[in-house]
Amino acid sequence: MASLPLLVVKIGGNVIDAPPLLAQFLTDFAALPNPKVLVHGGGKLATRLAEQLGLEVKMHNGRRITDRDTLDVAVMTYAGLANKNMVAGLQARGCAALGLTGADLDLIRSERRPVKDGIDYGFVGDVRHVHAPALAGLLASGCTPVLAPLTHDGTGQLLNTNADTIASEVAVALAAHLGQASLLFCFEKKGVLANAQDDDSVIAHIDPDYYARLKADGVVHSGMLPKLDNAFAAIARGVRAVYIFQAEALAHFGKPNFVGTQIAPAR
Amino acid sequence: MASLPLLVVKIGGNVIDAPPLLAQFLTDFAALPNPKVLVHGGGKLATRLAEQLGLEVKMHNGRRITDRDTLDVAVMTYAGLANKNMVAGLQARGCAALGLTGADLDLIRSERRPVKDGIDYGFVGDVRHVHAPALAGLLASGCTPVLAPLTHDGTGQLLNTNADTIASEVAVALAAHLGQASLLFCFEKKGVLANAQDDDSVIAHIDPDYYARLKADGVVHSGMLPKLDNAFAAIARGVRAVYIFQAEALAHFGKPNFVGTQIAPAR
Repeated sequence: MASLPLLVVKIGGNVIDAPPLLAQFLTDFAALPNPKVLVHGGGKLATRLAEQLGLEVKMHNGRRITDRDTLDVAVMTYAGLANKNMVAGLQARGCAALGLTGADLDLIRSERRPVKDGIDYGFVGDVRHVHAPALAGLLASGCTPVLAPLTHDGTGQLLNTNADTIASEVAVALAAHLGQASLLFCFEKKGVLANAQDDDSVIAHIDPDYYARLKADGVVHSGMLPKLDNAFAAIARGVRAVYIFQAEALAHFGKPNFVGTQIAPAR
Repeated sequence: MASLPLLVVKIGGNVIDAPPLLAQFLTDFAALPNPKVLVHGGGKLATRLAEQLGLEVKMHNGRRITDRDTLDVAVMTYAGLANKNMVAGLQARGCAALGLTGADLDLIRSERRPVKDGIDYGFVGDVRHVHAPALAGLLASGCTPVLAPLTHDGTGQLLNTNADTIASEVAVALAAHLGQASLLFCFEKKGVLANAQDDDSVIAHIDPDYYARLKADGVVHSGMLPKLDNAFAAIARGVRAVYIFQAEALAHFGKPNFVGTQIAPAR
Protein backbone atom coordinates (compact mmCIF):
# COMPACT_ATOMS: atom_id res chain seq x y z
CA MET A 1 0.00 0.00 0.00
CA ALA A 2 2.71 2.46 1.01
CA SER A 3 4.58 1.65 -2.20
CA LEU A 4 1.69 2.58 -4.50
CA PRO A 5 2.07 6.09 -5.87
CA LEU A 6 -0.17 8.81 -4.50
CA LEU A 7 -2.75 10.08 -6.99
CA VAL A 8 -4.33 13.53 -6.91
CA VAL A 9 -7.41 13.28 -9.13
CA LYS A 10 -9.33 16.33 -10.31
CA ILE A 11 -12.80 16.02 -11.86
CA GLY A 12 -14.48 18.67 -13.93
CA GLY A 13 -17.98 20.04 -13.91
CA ASN A 14 -19.12 17.76 -16.74
CA VAL A 15 -18.85 14.78 -14.36
CA ILE A 16 -20.61 16.51 -11.46
CA ASP A 17 -23.44 17.65 -13.71
CA ALA A 18 -24.21 14.15 -15.05
CA PRO A 19 -25.45 11.81 -12.27
CA PRO A 20 -24.82 8.50 -14.15
CA LEU A 21 -21.29 9.65 -15.12
CA LEU A 22 -20.64 10.75 -11.53
CA ALA A 23 -21.87 7.42 -10.12
CA GLN A 24 -19.54 5.50 -12.46
CA PHE A 25 -16.65 7.85 -11.66
CA LEU A 26 -17.14 7.37 -7.90
CA THR A 27 -17.12 3.58 -8.40
CA ASP A 28 -13.89 3.74 -10.44
CA PHE A 29 -12.26 6.22 -8.07
CA ALA A 30 -13.16 4.15 -4.98
CA ALA A 31 -11.66 1.07 -6.69
CA LEU A 32 -8.21 2.66 -7.20
CA PRO A 33 -5.89 0.80 -4.84
CA ASN A 34 -3.59 3.83 -4.47
CA PRO A 35 -3.67 6.40 -1.69
CA LYS A 36 -5.58 9.25 -3.31
CA VAL A 37 -7.02 12.73 -3.07
CA LEU A 38 -10.08 13.92 -4.99
CA VAL A 39 -10.42 17.58 -6.00
CA HIS A 40 -13.69 18.77 -7.50
CA GLY A 41 -15.39 21.89 -8.80
CA GLY A 42 -19.08 22.60 -8.58
CA GLY A 43 -20.18 22.24 -12.16
CA LYS A 44 -23.36 24.11 -12.93
CA LEU A 45 -24.69 23.80 -9.36
CA ALA A 46 -23.37 27.24 -8.38
CA THR A 47 -24.60 28.93 -11.56
CA ARG A 48 -28.02 27.32 -11.16
CA LEU A 49 -28.38 28.36 -7.50
CA ALA A 50 -27.20 31.89 -8.31
CA GLU A 51 -29.86 32.10 -11.03
CA GLN A 52 -32.55 30.76 -8.69
CA LEU A 53 -31.58 33.43 -6.15
CA GLY A 54 -31.64 36.10 -8.84
CA LEU A 55 -27.95 36.93 -8.45
CA GLU A 56 -26.27 38.57 -11.39
CA VAL A 57 -23.27 36.58 -12.66
CA LYS A 58 -20.40 39.01 -13.14
CA MET A 59 -17.55 37.97 -15.39
CA HIS A 60 -14.25 39.57 -16.38
CA ASN A 61 -12.09 37.99 -19.11
CA GLY A 62 -13.93 34.69 -18.70
CA ARG A 63 -13.41 34.67 -14.95
CA ARG A 64 -16.24 35.01 -12.50
CA ILE A 65 -16.20 37.95 -10.10
CA THR A 66 -16.96 36.62 -6.62
CA ASP A 67 -18.95 39.11 -4.56
CA ARG A 68 -20.17 38.17 -1.08
CA ASP A 69 -23.42 36.56 -2.24
CA THR A 70 -21.58 34.63 -4.97
CA LEU A 71 -19.06 33.38 -2.40
CA ASP A 72 -21.94 32.15 -0.20
CA VAL A 73 -23.36 30.31 -3.23
CA ALA A 74 -19.94 28.72 -3.90
CA VAL A 75 -19.61 27.64 -0.26
CA MET A 76 -23.12 26.17 -0.25
CA THR A 77 -22.79 24.29 -3.53
CA TYR A 78 -19.09 23.30 -3.55
CA ALA A 79 -18.48 22.57 0.16
CA GLY A 80 -22.08 21.56 0.85
CA LEU A 81 -24.09 19.96 -1.93
CA ALA A 82 -21.34 18.67 -4.24
CA ASN A 83 -18.79 17.71 -1.61
CA LYS A 84 -21.04 15.95 0.90
CA ASN A 85 -23.03 14.01 -1.68
CA MET A 86 -19.76 12.77 -3.21
CA VAL A 87 -18.48 11.81 0.24
CA ALA A 88 -21.68 9.86 0.97
CA GLY A 89 -21.41 8.20 -2.46
CA LEU A 90 -17.79 7.20 -1.83
CA GLN A 91 -18.64 5.83 1.62
CA ALA A 92 -21.32 3.66 -0.01
CA ARG A 93 -18.51 2.26 -2.19
CA GLY A 94 -16.23 1.43 0.74
CA CYS A 95 -13.97 4.47 0.38
CA ALA A 96 -13.20 6.25 3.67
CA ALA A 97 -13.87 9.70 2.22
CA LEU A 98 -13.46 12.93 4.18
CA GLY A 99 -14.86 16.13 2.68
CA LEU A 100 -12.69 19.21 3.14
CA THR A 101 -12.10 22.81 2.20
CA GLY A 102 -8.79 24.64 2.60
CA ALA A 103 -10.10 26.07 5.89
CA ASP A 104 -10.42 22.63 7.49
CA LEU A 105 -7.25 21.79 9.43
CA ASP A 106 -5.79 24.98 7.87
CA LEU A 107 -5.05 22.83 4.81
CA ILE A 108 -4.82 25.58 2.19
CA ARG A 109 -4.14 29.21 2.96
CA SER A 110 -4.62 31.79 0.29
CA GLU A 111 -4.39 35.51 -0.15
CA ARG A 112 -7.25 37.55 -1.53
CA ARG A 113 -6.29 38.56 -5.07
CA PRO A 114 -5.26 42.22 -5.08
CA VAL A 115 -7.17 44.72 -7.18
CA LYS A 116 -5.20 45.20 -10.40
CA ASP A 117 -5.87 47.54 -13.31
CA GLY A 118 -9.11 48.50 -11.60
CA ILE A 119 -10.38 44.89 -11.55
CA ASP A 120 -11.48 43.52 -8.18
CA TYR A 121 -12.14 39.78 -8.50
CA GLY A 122 -13.77 39.85 -5.08
CA PHE A 123 -13.47 36.90 -2.69
CA VAL A 124 -10.97 34.96 -4.80
CA GLY A 125 -7.87 33.49 -3.19
CA ASP A 126 -4.44 32.79 -4.68
CA VAL A 127 -2.84 29.82 -2.91
CA ARG A 128 0.02 30.71 -0.54
CA HIS A 129 0.51 27.54 1.51
CA VAL A 130 -0.60 23.91 1.49
CA HIS A 131 -0.33 22.13 4.86
CA ALA A 132 1.13 18.92 3.39
CA PRO A 133 1.86 17.19 6.75
CA ALA A 134 -1.83 17.42 7.71
CA LEU A 135 -2.92 15.96 4.35
CA ALA A 136 -0.25 13.27 4.59
CA GLY A 137 -1.44 12.42 8.10
CA LEU A 138 -4.98 11.93 6.85
CA LEU A 139 -3.70 9.73 3.99
CA ALA A 140 -1.55 7.71 6.41
CA SER A 141 -4.63 7.05 8.56
CA GLY A 142 -6.23 5.44 5.51
CA CYS A 143 -8.71 8.12 4.58
CA THR A 144 -9.34 9.79 1.23
CA PRO A 145 -9.51 13.59 1.29
CA VAL A 146 -12.18 15.09 -1.00
CA LEU A 147 -11.38 18.75 -1.56
CA ALA A 148 -13.85 21.46 -2.55
CA PRO A 149 -12.32 24.50 -4.32
CA LEU A 150 -12.41 26.86 -1.34
CA THR A 151 -9.52 28.18 0.73
CA HIS A 152 -9.18 30.63 3.62
CA ASP A 153 -6.99 33.62 4.44
CA GLY A 154 -6.31 32.80 8.11
CA THR A 155 -8.45 35.67 9.42
CA GLY A 156 -11.76 33.82 9.10
CA GLN A 157 -12.48 34.68 5.47
CA LEU A 158 -13.27 31.87 3.04
CA LEU A 159 -12.08 32.45 -0.53
CA ASN A 160 -12.99 30.94 -3.89
CA THR A 161 -10.02 29.23 -5.60
CA ASN A 162 -9.81 27.54 -9.00
CA ALA A 163 -10.08 23.74 -8.65
CA ASP A 164 -7.30 23.01 -11.21
CA THR A 165 -4.99 25.25 -9.18
CA ILE A 166 -5.92 23.48 -5.93
CA ALA A 167 -5.23 20.09 -7.53
CA SER A 168 -1.80 21.09 -8.79
CA GLU A 169 -0.78 22.95 -5.60
CA VAL A 170 -1.82 19.92 -3.51
CA ALA A 171 0.10 17.54 -5.81
CA VAL A 172 3.21 19.75 -5.69
CA ALA A 173 3.08 20.01 -1.88
CA LEU A 174 2.51 16.26 -1.40
CA ALA A 175 5.27 15.41 -3.92
CA ALA A 176 7.69 17.50 -1.85
CA HIS A 177 6.48 16.02 1.44
CA LEU A 178 6.14 12.36 0.46
CA GLY A 179 8.77 12.14 -2.28
CA GLN A 180 6.24 11.44 -5.04
CA ALA A 181 2.77 12.25 -6.31
CA SER A 182 1.00 12.08 -9.65
CA LEU A 183 -1.71 14.40 -10.88
CA LEU A 184 -4.69 13.24 -12.94
CA PHE A 185 -7.00 15.71 -14.67
CA CYS A 186 -10.30 14.22 -15.83
CA PHE A 187 -11.93 16.47 -18.39
CA GLU A 188 -14.39 16.43 -21.33
CA LYS A 189 -12.05 15.05 -24.03
CA LYS A 190 -10.11 11.77 -24.15
CA GLY A 191 -6.86 13.71 -23.91
CA VAL A 192 -4.95 16.34 -25.86
CA LEU A 193 -6.04 15.88 -29.48
CA ALA A 194 -3.74 16.10 -32.53
CA ASN A 195 -6.84 16.90 -34.56
CA ALA A 196 -9.66 18.77 -32.81
CA GLN A 197 -12.17 17.18 -35.24
CA ASP A 198 -11.12 13.65 -34.28
CA ASP A 199 -11.91 12.67 -30.69
CA ASP A 200 -9.70 9.60 -31.03
CA SER A 201 -6.53 11.46 -32.11
CA VAL A 202 -5.21 11.44 -28.55
CA ILE A 203 -1.53 12.35 -28.17
CA ALA A 204 -0.11 9.81 -25.71
CA HIS A 205 2.92 11.82 -24.51
CA ILE A 206 3.84 15.49 -24.59
CA ASP A 207 7.19 16.81 -23.38
CA PRO A 208 8.16 20.51 -23.30
CA ASP A 209 9.77 20.45 -26.79
CA TYR A 210 6.74 18.79 -28.36
CA TYR A 211 4.46 21.20 -26.48
CA ALA A 212 6.35 24.15 -27.99
CA ARG A 213 5.80 22.71 -31.48
CA LEU A 214 2.10 21.99 -30.85
CA LYS A 215 1.63 25.58 -29.74
CA ALA A 216 3.57 26.96 -32.73
CA ASP A 217 1.47 24.83 -35.10
CA GLY A 218 -1.76 25.99 -33.45
CA VAL A 219 -2.74 22.41 -32.55
CA VAL A 220 -3.05 23.40 -28.90
CA HIS A 221 -4.81 26.70 -28.27
CA SER A 222 -7.34 28.65 -26.20
CA GLY A 223 -8.75 26.71 -23.23
CA MET A 224 -6.09 23.98 -23.38
CA LEU A 225 -3.20 26.40 -22.90
CA PRO A 226 -3.73 27.25 -19.18
CA LYS A 227 -4.43 23.57 -18.46
CA LEU A 228 -1.20 22.42 -20.12
CA ASP A 229 0.86 25.31 -18.72
CA ASN A 230 -0.44 24.31 -15.29
CA ALA A 231 0.49 20.65 -15.97
CA PHE A 232 4.05 21.47 -17.08
CA ALA A 233 4.48 23.80 -14.10
CA ALA A 234 3.47 20.95 -11.76
CA ILE A 235 6.06 18.64 -13.40
CA ALA A 236 8.73 21.34 -13.09
CA ARG A 237 7.84 21.66 -9.38
CA GLY A 238 8.34 17.95 -8.63
CA VAL A 239 5.13 16.14 -9.53
CA ARG A 240 6.14 12.78 -11.01
CA ALA A 241 3.61 12.67 -13.84
CA VAL A 242 0.50 14.49 -15.00
CA TYR A 243 -2.23 12.79 -17.03
CA ILE A 244 -5.13 14.41 -18.90
CA PHE A 245 -8.02 12.14 -19.87
CA GLN A 246 -11.74 11.50 -19.81
CA ALA A 247 -13.34 10.43 -16.51
CA GLU A 248 -14.57 7.23 -18.21
CA ALA A 249 -10.92 6.12 -18.67
CA LEU A 250 -10.12 6.17 -14.94
CA ALA A 251 -11.03 2.47 -14.61
CA HIS A 252 -8.19 1.70 -17.06
CA PHE A 253 -5.58 3.96 -15.45
CA GLY A 254 -2.22 2.16 -15.25
CA LYS A 255 -3.43 -0.59 -17.59
CA PRO A 256 -2.48 -1.21 -21.26
CA ASN A 257 -5.87 -0.09 -22.60
CA PHE A 258 -5.73 3.30 -20.85
CA VAL A 259 -6.33 6.22 -23.22
CA GLY A 260 -5.10 9.68 -22.28
CA THR A 261 -2.27 12.18 -22.57
CA GLN A 262 0.73 11.98 -20.28
CA ILE A 263 2.64 15.18 -19.68
CA ALA A 264 6.30 14.23 -19.55
CA PRO A 265 9.28 16.14 -18.16
CA ALA A 266 12.01 17.47 -20.48
CA ARG A 267 14.31 14.70 -21.71
CA MET B 1 -3.99 17.73 28.08
CA ALA B 2 -4.97 14.06 28.05
CA SER B 3 -6.30 14.42 31.58
CA LEU B 4 -8.69 17.27 30.75
CA PRO B 5 -12.22 15.99 30.24
CA LEU B 6 -13.62 15.87 26.73
CA LEU B 7 -16.38 18.39 26.07
CA VAL B 8 -19.09 18.00 23.43
CA VAL B 9 -20.57 21.49 22.98
CA LYS B 10 -23.81 22.10 21.11
CA ILE B 11 -24.83 25.60 20.02
CA GLY B 12 -28.30 26.61 19.03
CA GLY B 13 -29.62 28.68 16.17
CA ASN B 14 -29.76 31.88 18.24
CA VAL B 15 -25.93 31.95 18.29
CA ILE B 16 -25.56 31.19 14.58
CA ASP B 17 -28.08 33.87 13.65
CA ALA B 18 -26.32 36.66 15.57
CA PRO B 19 -22.85 37.41 14.13
CA PRO B 20 -21.47 39.29 17.20
CA LEU B 21 -22.69 36.49 19.52
CA LEU B 22 -21.19 33.87 17.19
CA ALA B 23 -17.84 35.68 17.04
CA GLN B 24 -17.67 35.83 20.85
CA PHE B 25 -18.74 32.20 21.13
CA LEU B 26 -16.00 31.08 18.70
CA THR B 27 -13.43 33.01 20.74
CA ASP B 28 -14.60 31.39 23.99
CA PHE B 29 -14.85 27.93 22.44
CA ALA B 30 -11.38 28.16 20.87
CA ALA B 31 -9.97 29.19 24.27
CA LEU B 32 -11.26 26.05 26.06
CA PRO B 33 -8.13 24.04 26.91
CA ASN B 34 -10.04 20.75 26.78
CA PRO B 35 -10.24 18.38 23.85
CA LYS B 36 -13.60 19.27 22.35
CA VAL B 37 -16.24 18.68 19.69
CA LEU B 38 -18.62 21.36 18.42
CA VAL B 39 -22.10 20.41 17.17
CA HIS B 40 -24.23 23.06 15.49
CA GLY B 41 -27.58 23.52 13.79
CA GLY B 42 -28.26 25.94 10.98
CA GLY B 43 -30.36 28.57 12.68
CA LYS B 44 -32.55 30.51 10.29
CA LEU B 45 -30.14 30.03 7.35
CA ALA B 46 -32.05 27.03 6.03
CA THR B 47 -35.46 28.63 6.47
CA ARG B 48 -34.25 31.81 4.77
CA LEU B 49 -32.73 29.96 1.80
CA ALA B 50 -35.86 27.81 1.45
CA GLU B 51 -37.95 30.99 1.35
CA GLN B 52 -35.66 32.61 -1.22
CA LEU B 53 -36.01 29.50 -3.38
CA GLY B 54 -39.77 29.55 -2.96
CA LEU B 55 -39.87 26.16 -1.22
CA GLU B 56 -42.85 25.46 0.94
CA VAL B 57 -41.90 24.63 4.54
CA LYS B 58 -43.86 21.55 5.57
CA MET B 59 -44.25 20.86 9.27
CA HIS B 60 -45.86 18.05 11.27
CA ASN B 61 -46.22 18.35 15.05
CA GLY B 62 -43.56 21.06 15.13
CA ARG B 63 -41.12 18.97 13.10
CA ARG B 64 -40.04 19.87 9.64
CA ILE B 65 -40.77 17.42 6.82
CA THR B 66 -37.60 17.06 4.78
CA ASP B 67 -38.37 16.53 1.10
CA ARG B 68 -35.52 16.30 -1.44
CA ASP B 69 -35.27 20.06 -2.05
CA THR B 70 -35.39 20.75 1.70
CA LEU B 71 -32.60 18.22 2.26
CA ASP B 72 -30.48 20.00 -0.37
CA VAL B 73 -31.10 23.29 1.43
CA ALA B 74 -30.06 21.70 4.74
CA VAL B 75 -26.87 20.29 3.18
CA MET B 76 -26.01 23.65 1.61
CA THR B 77 -26.63 25.74 4.71
CA TYR B 78 -25.59 23.37 7.53
CA ALA B 79 -22.63 21.53 5.95
CA GLY B 80 -21.69 24.45 3.66
CA LEU B 81 -22.39 27.97 4.84
CA ALA B 82 -22.67 27.51 8.62
CA ASN B 83 -20.05 24.79 9.04
CA LYS B 84 -17.27 26.17 6.85
CA ASN B 85 -17.59 29.75 8.06
CA MET B 86 -17.37 28.51 11.65
CA VAL B 87 -14.34 26.40 10.76
CA ALA B 88 -12.61 29.41 9.15
CA GLY B 89 -13.51 31.52 12.21
CA LEU B 90 -12.06 28.91 14.59
CA GLN B 91 -8.88 28.61 12.50
CA ALA B 92 -8.46 32.40 12.80
CA ARG B 93 -8.57 31.87 16.58
CA GLY B 94 -5.88 29.17 16.58
CA CYS B 95 -8.26 26.22 16.87
CA ALA B 96 -7.47 23.32 14.49
CA ALA B 97 -11.09 22.92 13.40
CA LEU B 98 -12.28 20.26 10.99
CA GLY B 99 -15.80 20.56 9.59
CA LEU B 100 -17.69 17.28 9.29
CA THR B 101 -21.01 15.61 8.62
CA GLY B 102 -21.91 12.08 9.64
CA ALA B 103 -21.00 10.93 6.12
CA ASP B 104 -17.36 12.01 6.48
CA LEU B 105 -15.24 9.08 7.67
CA ASP B 106 -18.57 7.23 8.12
CA LEU B 107 -18.81 9.02 11.48
CA ILE B 108 -22.57 8.78 12.01
CA ARG B 109 -24.81 6.27 10.30
CA SER B 110 -28.52 6.67 10.51
CA GLU B 111 -31.65 5.01 9.23
CA ARG B 112 -34.32 6.88 7.36
CA ARG B 113 -37.25 7.28 9.72
CA PRO B 114 -40.00 4.83 8.72
CA VAL B 115 -43.42 6.12 7.68
CA LYS B 116 -45.69 5.84 10.74
CA ASP B 117 -49.39 6.62 11.06
CA GLY B 118 -49.26 7.90 7.51
CA ILE B 119 -46.56 10.50 8.31
CA ASP B 120 -43.45 10.44 6.13
CA TYR B 121 -40.83 12.77 7.59
CA GLY B 122 -38.85 12.43 4.38
CA PHE B 123 -35.04 12.46 4.44
CA VAL B 124 -34.71 12.38 8.22
CA GLY B 125 -32.30 9.96 9.84
CA ASP B 126 -32.45 8.32 13.26
CA VAL B 127 -28.91 7.64 14.52
CA ARG B 128 -27.87 3.98 14.47
CA HIS B 129 -24.10 4.10 14.95
CA VAL B 130 -21.40 6.61 15.89
CA HIS B 131 -17.88 5.68 14.77
CA ALA B 132 -16.24 6.70 18.07
CA PRO B 133 -12.72 5.40 17.22
CA ALA B 134 -12.56 7.70 14.16
CA LEU B 135 -13.67 10.72 16.21
CA ALA B 136 -11.25 9.77 19.01
CA GLY B 137 -8.45 9.49 16.44
CA LEU B 138 -9.15 13.01 15.18
CA LEU B 139 -9.17 14.31 18.76
CA ALA B 140 -5.92 12.48 19.55
CA SER B 141 -4.30 14.17 16.55
CA GLY B 142 -5.13 17.53 18.16
CA CYS B 143 -7.96 18.62 15.95
CA THR B 144 -11.42 19.86 16.88
CA PRO B 145 -14.32 18.24 15.01
CA VAL B 146 -17.14 20.63 14.05
CA LEU B 147 -20.24 18.60 13.27
CA ALA B 148 -23.13 19.72 11.07
CA PRO B 149 -26.46 17.97 11.77
CA LEU B 150 -26.40 15.62 8.78
CA THR B 151 -25.87 11.87 8.73
CA HIS B 152 -25.87 9.17 6.05
CA ASP B 153 -27.46 5.78 5.58
CA GLY B 154 -24.46 3.96 4.09
CA THR B 155 -25.99 3.69 0.63
CA GLY B 156 -25.03 7.21 -0.45
CA GLN B 157 -28.05 9.02 0.97
CA LEU B 158 -27.50 12.02 3.26
CA LEU B 159 -30.13 12.46 5.97
CA ASN B 160 -31.19 15.35 8.18
CA THR B 161 -30.73 14.64 11.90
CA ASN B 162 -31.59 16.78 14.92
CA ALA B 163 -28.48 18.56 16.25
CA ASP B 164 -29.33 17.93 19.95
CA THR B 165 -29.57 14.21 19.13
CA ILE B 166 -26.22 14.26 17.32
CA ALA B 167 -24.59 15.98 20.29
CA SER B 168 -25.89 13.48 22.82
CA GLU B 169 -25.20 10.41 20.64
CA VAL B 170 -21.63 11.62 20.04
CA ALA B 171 -21.12 12.29 23.76
CA VAL B 172 -22.49 8.84 24.67
CA ALA B 173 -20.26 7.09 22.11
CA LEU B 174 -17.14 9.01 23.15
CA ALA B 175 -17.88 8.44 26.84
CA ALA B 176 -17.98 4.69 26.16
CA HIS B 177 -14.83 4.78 24.00
CA LEU B 178 -12.67 7.16 26.06
CA GLY B 179 -14.05 6.47 29.55
CA GLN B 180 -15.45 10.00 29.97
CA ALA B 181 -17.17 12.86 28.17
CA SER B 182 -19.31 15.81 29.21
CA LEU B 183 -22.09 17.39 27.19
CA LEU B 184 -22.75 21.14 27.11
CA PHE B 185 -25.93 22.57 25.60
CA CYS B 186 -25.78 26.30 24.88
CA PHE B 187 -29.27 27.69 24.43
CA GLU B 188 -31.30 30.92 24.72
CA LYS B 189 -31.78 30.97 28.50
CA LYS B 190 -29.20 31.05 31.30
CA GLY B 191 -30.27 27.55 32.35
CA VAL B 192 -33.38 25.76 33.57
CA LEU B 193 -35.41 28.44 35.35
CA ALA B 194 -37.35 27.96 38.61
CA ASN B 195 -39.53 30.89 37.54
CA ALA B 196 -40.06 31.39 33.82
CA GLN B 197 -40.60 35.16 34.45
CA ASP B 198 -37.18 35.53 36.11
CA ASP B 199 -34.21 34.94 33.83
CA ASP B 200 -31.90 34.80 36.83
CA SER B 201 -33.76 32.03 38.68
CA VAL B 202 -31.37 29.41 37.31
CA ILE B 203 -31.53 26.00 38.98
CA ALA B 204 -27.91 24.96 39.52
CA HIS B 205 -28.45 21.19 39.79
CA ILE B 206 -31.23 18.84 38.77
CA ASP B 207 -31.21 15.13 39.55
CA PRO B 208 -33.90 12.67 38.45
CA ASP B 209 -35.96 13.04 41.68
CA TYR B 210 -35.94 16.82 41.47
CA TYR B 211 -36.77 16.63 37.74
CA ALA B 212 -39.83 14.50 38.55
CA ARG B 213 -40.99 17.15 41.03
CA LEU B 214 -40.33 20.03 38.60
CA LYS B 215 -42.42 18.26 35.98
CA ALA B 216 -45.23 17.48 38.47
CA ASP B 217 -45.29 21.14 39.56
CA GLY B 218 -45.36 22.34 35.95
CA VAL B 219 -42.12 24.33 36.40
CA VAL B 220 -40.57 22.45 33.48
CA HIS B 221 -42.85 22.03 30.48
CA SER B 222 -43.22 22.16 26.69
CA GLY B 223 -39.94 22.78 24.83
CA MET B 224 -37.73 22.05 27.85
CA LEU B 225 -39.08 18.50 28.28
CA PRO B 226 -37.38 16.86 25.26
CA LYS B 227 -34.16 18.74 26.03
CA LEU B 228 -34.09 17.54 29.63
CA ASP B 229 -35.25 14.01 28.77
CA ASN B 230 -32.38 13.91 26.27
CA ALA B 231 -29.94 15.17 28.93
CA PHE B 232 -31.01 12.58 31.52
CA ALA B 233 -30.85 9.84 28.89
CA ALA B 234 -27.25 10.84 28.09
CA ILE B 235 -26.33 10.66 31.80
CA ALA B 236 -27.99 7.24 32.09
CA ARG B 237 -25.93 6.10 29.07
CA GLY B 238 -22.57 7.04 30.59
CA VAL B 239 -22.02 10.76 29.93
CA ARG B 240 -20.31 12.17 33.03
CA ALA B 241 -22.22 15.45 33.22
CA VAL B 242 -24.62 17.53 31.13
CA TYR B 243 -24.83 21.32 31.42
CA ILE B 244 -27.48 23.64 30.00
CA PHE B 245 -26.60 27.33 29.81
CA GLN B 246 -26.36 30.46 27.69
CA ALA B 247 -23.56 30.68 25.11
CA GLU B 248 -22.27 33.84 26.82
CA ALA B 249 -21.43 31.75 29.92
CA LEU B 250 -19.03 29.42 28.09
CA ALA B 251 -16.06 31.66 28.98
CA HIS B 252 -16.80 30.93 32.67
CA PHE B 253 -17.31 27.18 32.30
CA GLY B 254 -15.54 25.32 35.11
CA LYS B 255 -15.03 28.57 37.07
CA PRO B 256 -16.82 29.78 40.24
CA ASN B 257 -18.80 32.48 38.40
CA PHE B 258 -20.27 30.03 35.86
CA VAL B 259 -24.06 30.23 35.64
CA GLY B 260 -26.00 27.29 34.26
CA THR B 261 -27.88 24.12 35.12
CA GLN B 262 -26.03 20.88 35.72
CA ILE B 263 -27.96 17.69 35.09
CA ALA B 264 -26.86 15.26 37.76
CA PRO B 265 -27.20 11.46 37.94
CA ALA B 266 -29.47 9.84 40.53
CA ARG B 267 -28.00 9.89 44.03
